Amino acid sequence: MLRAASRVPDHGTRVPFRFLRIAGEARAALGEVLASRKREIDPDVPDAVLDKERLRFSHAPVIVAVVAQQGYDAKIPASERFSTASCVCFALLQAAQAAGFGAQWLTGWAAYDPVVRERLGIGQDEAIVGFIHVGTALTEAPERERPDATALLSDWQA
Amino acid sequence: MLRAASRVPDHGTRVPFRFLRIAGEARAALGEVLASRKREIDPDVPDAVLDKERLRFSHAPVIVAVVAQQGYDAKIPASERFSTASCVCFALLQAAQAAGFGAQWLTGWAAYDPVVRERLGIGQDEAIVGFIHVGTALTEAPERERPDATALLSDWQA
Repeated sequence: MLRAASRVPDHGTRVPFRFLRIAGEARAALGEVLASRKREIDPDVPDAVLDKERLRFSHAPVIVAVVAQQGYDAKIPASERFSTASCVCFALLQAAQAAGFGAQWLTGWAAYDPVVRERLGIGQDEAIVGFIHVGTALTEAPERERPDATALLSDWQA
Repeated sequence: MLRAASRVPDHGTRVPFRFLRIAGEARAALGEVLASRKREIDPDVPDAVLDKERLRFSHAPVIVAVVAQQGYDAKIPASERFSTASCVCFALLQAAQAAGFGAQWLTGWAAYDPVVRERLGIGQDEAIVGFIHVGTALTEAPERERPDATALLSDWQA
Protein backbone atom coordinates (compact mmCIF):
# COMPACT_ATOMS: atom_id res chain seq x y z
CA MET A 1 0.00 0.00 0.00
CA LEU A 2 2.79 2.40 0.87
CA ARG A 3 4.50 1.54 -2.39
CA ALA A 4 1.35 2.39 -4.34
CA ALA A 5 0.91 5.54 -2.28
CA SER A 6 4.44 6.62 -3.19
CA ARG A 7 3.63 6.72 -6.94
CA VAL A 8 2.65 10.36 -7.13
CA PRO A 9 3.42 13.46 -9.16
CA ASP A 10 6.59 14.91 -7.66
CA HIS A 11 8.08 18.02 -9.25
CA GLY A 12 11.86 17.72 -9.17
CA THR A 13 11.58 14.18 -7.69
CA ARG A 14 12.24 15.48 -4.20
CA VAL A 15 10.35 12.62 -2.50
CA PRO A 16 9.16 15.29 -0.08
CA PHE A 17 7.24 13.01 2.24
CA ARG A 18 7.60 10.24 4.80
CA PHE A 19 5.30 7.86 6.62
CA LEU A 20 4.93 7.65 10.39
CA ARG A 21 3.03 4.56 11.49
CA ILE A 22 1.00 4.59 14.69
CA ALA A 23 -0.09 1.08 15.59
CA GLY A 24 -0.58 -1.24 18.54
CA GLU A 25 0.01 0.33 21.93
CA ALA A 26 1.29 3.54 20.38
CA ARG A 27 -2.30 4.41 19.49
CA ALA A 28 -3.50 4.65 23.08
CA ALA A 29 -0.25 6.35 24.07
CA LEU A 30 -0.85 9.04 21.46
CA GLY A 31 -4.41 9.38 22.77
CA GLU A 32 -2.95 10.11 26.22
CA VAL A 33 -0.67 12.76 24.68
CA LEU A 34 -3.69 14.41 23.07
CA ALA A 35 -5.81 14.30 26.23
CA SER A 36 -3.06 15.71 28.40
CA ARG A 37 -2.37 18.47 25.88
CA LYS A 38 -6.09 19.33 25.75
CA ARG A 39 -6.13 19.66 29.54
CA GLU A 40 -3.01 21.81 29.42
CA ILE A 41 -4.71 24.16 26.95
CA ASP A 42 -7.97 24.22 28.90
CA PRO A 43 -7.89 22.97 32.50
CA ASP A 44 -11.70 23.00 32.55
CA VAL A 45 -12.14 20.74 29.56
CA PRO A 46 -15.01 18.26 30.10
CA ASP A 47 -14.13 14.63 30.73
CA ALA A 48 -16.14 13.59 27.68
CA VAL A 49 -13.82 15.62 25.48
CA LEU A 50 -10.78 14.05 27.10
CA ASP A 51 -12.23 10.60 26.55
CA LYS A 52 -12.75 11.39 22.89
CA GLU A 53 -9.14 12.52 22.54
CA ARG A 54 -7.90 9.38 24.28
CA LEU A 55 -9.71 7.21 21.74
CA ARG A 56 -8.94 9.31 18.69
CA PHE A 57 -6.27 6.94 17.40
CA SER A 58 -7.86 3.74 18.68
CA HIS A 59 -10.68 3.28 16.20
CA ALA A 60 -8.51 1.73 13.50
CA PRO A 61 -5.72 -0.85 13.96
CA VAL A 62 -3.21 1.26 12.09
CA ILE A 63 -2.85 4.92 11.32
CA VAL A 64 -0.27 6.32 8.95
CA ALA A 65 0.69 9.96 9.29
CA VAL A 66 1.85 11.44 5.98
CA VAL A 67 4.49 14.06 6.68
CA ALA A 68 5.54 16.65 4.07
CA GLN A 69 8.98 18.18 3.77
CA GLN A 70 8.47 21.94 3.72
CA GLY A 71 12.00 23.25 4.25
CA TYR A 72 13.93 25.57 1.98
CA ASP A 73 14.35 24.39 -1.60
CA ALA A 74 15.88 26.65 -4.23
CA LYS A 75 13.71 25.30 -7.06
CA ILE A 76 10.59 23.58 -5.83
CA PRO A 77 8.07 25.68 -3.86
CA ALA A 78 6.88 24.28 -0.54
CA SER A 79 3.31 24.34 -1.88
CA GLU A 80 4.24 21.92 -4.68
CA ARG A 81 5.81 19.56 -2.17
CA PHE A 82 2.67 19.89 -0.09
CA SER A 83 0.69 18.88 -3.19
CA THR A 84 2.86 15.80 -3.61
CA ALA A 85 2.26 14.76 0.00
CA SER A 86 -1.48 15.41 -0.44
CA CYS A 87 -1.45 13.06 -3.43
CA VAL A 88 0.29 10.47 -1.23
CA CYS A 89 -2.62 10.69 1.23
CA PHE A 90 -5.14 10.29 -1.57
CA ALA A 91 -3.24 7.40 -3.15
CA LEU A 92 -2.95 5.69 0.22
CA LEU A 93 -6.73 5.90 0.66
CA GLN A 94 -7.20 4.42 -2.80
CA ALA A 95 -4.64 1.66 -2.20
CA ALA A 96 -6.21 0.72 1.13
CA GLN A 97 -9.68 0.61 -0.40
CA ALA A 98 -8.42 -1.38 -3.39
CA ALA A 99 -7.00 -3.90 -0.91
CA GLY A 100 -10.42 -4.25 0.71
CA PHE A 101 -9.86 -2.10 3.76
CA GLY A 102 -11.77 0.92 4.92
CA ALA A 103 -9.69 4.04 5.15
CA GLN A 104 -10.23 7.59 6.22
CA TRP A 105 -8.12 10.74 5.93
CA LEU A 106 -8.38 12.80 9.10
CA THR A 107 -6.24 15.75 9.95
CA GLY A 108 -7.55 17.61 12.98
CA TRP A 109 -5.99 19.84 15.61
CA ALA A 110 -3.31 17.32 16.60
CA ALA A 111 -1.64 17.80 13.21
CA TYR A 112 -1.08 21.48 13.95
CA ASP A 113 -0.45 21.60 17.68
CA PRO A 114 3.24 22.33 18.41
CA VAL A 115 3.40 20.13 21.50
CA VAL A 116 1.81 17.13 19.79
CA ARG A 117 3.99 17.68 16.72
CA GLU A 118 7.09 17.62 18.88
CA ARG A 119 5.98 14.44 20.64
CA LEU A 120 5.50 12.86 17.22
CA GLY A 121 9.00 13.92 16.18
CA ILE A 122 7.80 16.25 13.41
CA GLY A 123 10.55 18.67 12.42
CA GLN A 124 10.21 22.44 12.19
CA ASP A 125 10.36 22.15 8.40
CA GLU A 126 7.76 19.39 8.22
CA ALA A 127 3.96 19.37 8.10
CA ILE A 128 1.51 16.60 8.90
CA VAL A 129 -0.73 16.52 5.84
CA GLY A 130 -3.01 13.82 7.12
CA PHE A 131 -3.53 10.86 9.38
CA ILE A 132 -4.77 7.97 7.26
CA HIS A 133 -6.73 5.54 9.44
CA VAL A 134 -6.87 2.05 7.94
CA GLY A 135 -8.92 -0.89 9.11
CA THR A 136 -11.88 -3.10 8.42
CA ALA A 137 -14.95 -1.11 7.47
CA LEU A 138 -17.83 -1.92 9.82
CA THR A 139 -20.35 -0.03 7.74
CA GLU A 140 -20.40 1.07 4.14
CA ALA A 141 -19.43 4.73 3.89
CA PRO A 142 -22.51 6.60 2.73
CA GLU A 143 -22.17 8.29 -0.63
CA ARG A 144 -22.26 12.05 -0.25
CA GLU A 145 -23.43 14.68 -2.66
CA ARG A 146 -20.73 15.45 -5.19
CA PRO A 147 -20.15 18.83 -6.76
CA ASP A 148 -21.51 19.64 -10.19
CA ALA A 149 -18.24 19.73 -12.14
CA THR A 150 -19.80 21.63 -15.01
CA ALA A 151 -20.75 24.48 -12.69
CA LEU A 152 -17.12 24.68 -11.57
CA LEU A 153 -15.82 25.09 -15.12
CA SER A 154 -15.19 28.28 -17.02
CA ASP A 155 -13.26 29.06 -20.19
CA TRP A 156 -10.46 31.55 -20.24
CA GLN A 157 -10.63 34.18 -22.97
CA ALA A 158 -7.78 36.58 -23.62
CA MET B 1 -13.23 13.64 -16.60
CA LEU B 2 -13.98 16.71 -14.52
CA ARG B 3 -16.71 14.81 -12.74
CA ALA B 4 -14.26 12.07 -11.80
CA ALA B 5 -11.69 14.69 -10.80
CA SER B 6 -14.24 16.28 -8.48
CA ARG B 7 -14.55 13.12 -6.35
CA VAL B 8 -11.93 13.96 -3.78
CA PRO B 9 -11.49 14.12 -0.03
CA ASP B 10 -12.88 17.49 1.02
CA HIS B 11 -12.91 18.35 4.71
CA GLY B 12 -16.09 20.26 5.48
CA THR B 13 -17.33 19.78 1.88
CA ARG B 14 -16.20 23.26 0.92
CA VAL B 15 -15.70 22.35 -2.76
CA PRO B 16 -12.67 24.66 -2.54
CA PHE B 17 -11.68 24.45 -6.20
CA ARG B 18 -12.70 25.40 -9.70
CA PHE B 19 -11.59 24.58 -13.22
CA LEU B 20 -10.36 27.12 -15.76
CA ARG B 21 -10.13 25.67 -19.26
CA ILE B 22 -7.59 27.02 -21.73
CA ALA B 23 -8.30 25.68 -25.21
CA GLY B 24 -8.29 26.68 -28.86
CA GLU B 25 -7.02 30.17 -29.57
CA ALA B 26 -6.82 31.00 -25.88
CA ARG B 27 -3.70 28.82 -25.68
CA ALA B 28 -1.62 30.99 -27.99
CA ALA B 29 -3.09 34.12 -26.43
CA LEU B 30 -1.93 32.95 -23.02
CA GLY B 31 1.49 32.23 -24.54
CA GLU B 32 1.63 35.86 -25.65
CA VAL B 33 0.74 37.00 -22.13
CA LEU B 34 3.61 34.90 -20.76
CA ALA B 35 6.12 36.12 -23.33
CA SER B 36 5.23 39.76 -22.83
CA ARG B 37 5.41 39.36 -19.06
CA LYS B 38 8.83 37.69 -19.35
CA ARG B 39 10.07 40.66 -21.43
CA GLU B 40 8.64 43.07 -18.88
CA ILE B 41 10.57 41.31 -16.09
CA ASP B 42 13.78 41.08 -18.12
CA PRO B 43 14.05 43.32 -21.20
CA ASP B 44 17.17 41.38 -22.27
CA VAL B 45 15.49 37.98 -22.27
CA PRO B 46 16.69 35.87 -25.24
CA ASP B 47 14.26 35.27 -28.11
CA ALA B 48 14.52 31.53 -27.59
CA VAL B 49 13.08 31.94 -24.10
CA LEU B 50 10.24 34.07 -25.42
CA ASP B 51 9.47 31.48 -28.06
CA LYS B 52 9.32 28.81 -25.39
CA GLU B 53 6.88 30.89 -23.35
CA ARG B 54 4.71 31.54 -26.42
CA LEU B 55 4.35 27.80 -27.00
CA ARG B 56 4.00 26.78 -23.36
CA PHE B 57 0.24 26.24 -23.63
CA SER B 58 0.22 25.05 -27.24
CA HIS B 59 1.58 21.54 -26.84
CA ALA B 60 -1.73 20.01 -25.78
CA PRO B 61 -5.20 20.73 -27.20
CA VAL B 62 -6.64 21.51 -23.81
CA ILE B 63 -5.24 22.65 -20.51
CA VAL B 64 -7.25 22.78 -17.31
CA ALA B 65 -6.03 25.04 -14.55
CA VAL B 66 -7.11 23.79 -11.13
CA VAL B 67 -7.68 26.76 -8.86
CA ALA B 68 -7.90 26.43 -5.06
CA GLN B 69 -9.96 28.62 -2.78
CA GLN B 70 -7.60 29.88 -0.06
CA GLY B 71 -9.64 32.66 1.54
CA TYR B 72 -10.62 32.92 5.19
CA ASP B 73 -12.55 29.98 6.58
CA ALA B 74 -13.33 29.75 10.28
CA LYS B 75 -13.07 25.95 10.39
CA ILE B 76 -11.09 24.52 7.50
CA PRO B 77 -7.42 25.54 7.18
CA ALA B 78 -6.27 26.83 3.80
CA SER B 79 -3.73 23.99 3.67
CA GLU B 80 -6.52 21.39 3.83
CA ARG B 81 -8.32 23.12 0.98
CA PHE B 82 -5.04 23.16 -0.91
CA SER B 83 -4.82 19.40 -0.33
CA THR B 84 -8.29 18.95 -1.78
CA ALA B 85 -7.35 20.89 -4.91
CA SER B 86 -4.12 18.90 -5.19
CA CYS B 87 -6.19 15.72 -5.12
CA VAL B 88 -8.33 17.18 -7.91
CA CYS B 89 -5.20 17.60 -10.05
CA PHE B 90 -4.14 14.03 -9.34
CA ALA B 91 -7.62 12.64 -10.02
CA LEU B 92 -7.81 14.60 -13.26
CA LEU B 93 -4.53 13.06 -14.42
CA GLN B 94 -5.87 9.61 -13.55
CA ALA B 95 -9.21 10.26 -15.27
CA ALA B 96 -7.51 11.54 -18.43
CA GLN B 97 -5.20 8.54 -18.54
CA ALA B 98 -8.07 6.14 -17.86
CA ALA B 99 -9.83 7.70 -20.86
CA GLY B 100 -6.82 6.99 -23.05
CA PHE B 101 -5.30 10.44 -23.12
CA GLY B 102 -1.89 11.57 -22.12
CA ALA B 103 -1.87 14.12 -19.34
CA GLN B 104 0.72 16.09 -17.46
CA TRP B 105 0.58 18.26 -14.37
CA LEU B 106 2.72 21.36 -14.79
CA THR B 107 2.76 24.33 -12.52
CA GLY B 108 5.63 26.68 -13.34
CA TRP B 109 6.24 30.37 -12.83
CA ALA B 110 3.04 31.46 -14.57
CA ALA B 111 1.02 30.00 -11.70
CA TYR B 112 2.67 32.37 -9.24
CA ASP B 113 3.24 35.54 -11.24
CA PRO B 114 0.83 38.29 -10.11
CA VAL B 115 0.40 39.78 -13.59
CA VAL B 116 -0.34 36.44 -15.23
CA ARG B 117 -2.65 35.51 -12.36
CA GLU B 118 -4.58 38.71 -12.86
CA ARG B 119 -4.88 38.13 -16.60
CA LEU B 120 -6.24 34.67 -15.85
CA GLY B 121 -8.79 36.13 -13.46
CA ILE B 122 -7.38 34.41 -10.38
CA GLY B 123 -8.61 36.11 -7.21
CA GLN B 124 -6.42 37.30 -4.36
CA ASP B 125 -7.74 34.45 -2.24
CA GLU B 126 -7.14 31.82 -4.90
CA ALA B 127 -4.11 29.74 -5.88
CA ILE B 128 -3.35 27.92 -9.12
CA VAL B 129 -2.42 24.43 -7.94
CA GLY B 130 -1.64 23.09 -11.37
CA PHE B 131 -2.13 23.29 -15.10
CA ILE B 132 -3.22 19.87 -16.31
CA HIS B 133 -2.30 19.47 -19.98
CA VAL B 134 -4.43 16.84 -21.73
CA GLY B 135 -3.98 15.45 -25.22
CA THR B 136 -2.93 12.46 -27.25
CA ALA B 137 0.33 10.98 -26.03
CA LEU B 138 2.89 10.90 -28.86
CA THR B 139 5.34 8.79 -26.89
CA GLU B 140 4.96 6.57 -23.88
CA ALA B 141 6.02 8.39 -20.74
CA PRO B 142 9.16 6.68 -19.50
CA GLU B 143 8.87 5.06 -16.09
CA ARG B 144 11.00 6.83 -13.54
CA GLU B 145 12.64 5.51 -10.44
CA ARG B 146 10.15 5.33 -7.58
CA PRO B 147 11.01 5.86 -3.95
CA ASP B 148 11.59 2.92 -1.64
CA ALA B 149 8.46 3.21 0.50
CA THR B 150 9.92 1.03 3.24
CA ALA B 151 12.79 3.44 3.70
CA LEU B 152 10.27 6.25 4.17
CA LEU B 153 8.46 4.44 6.97
CA SER B 154 9.09 4.68 10.68
CA ASP B 155 7.06 3.64 13.71
CA TRP B 156 6.08 6.10 16.37
CA GLN B 157 6.82 5.06 19.95
CA ALA B 158 5.59 7.04 22.90
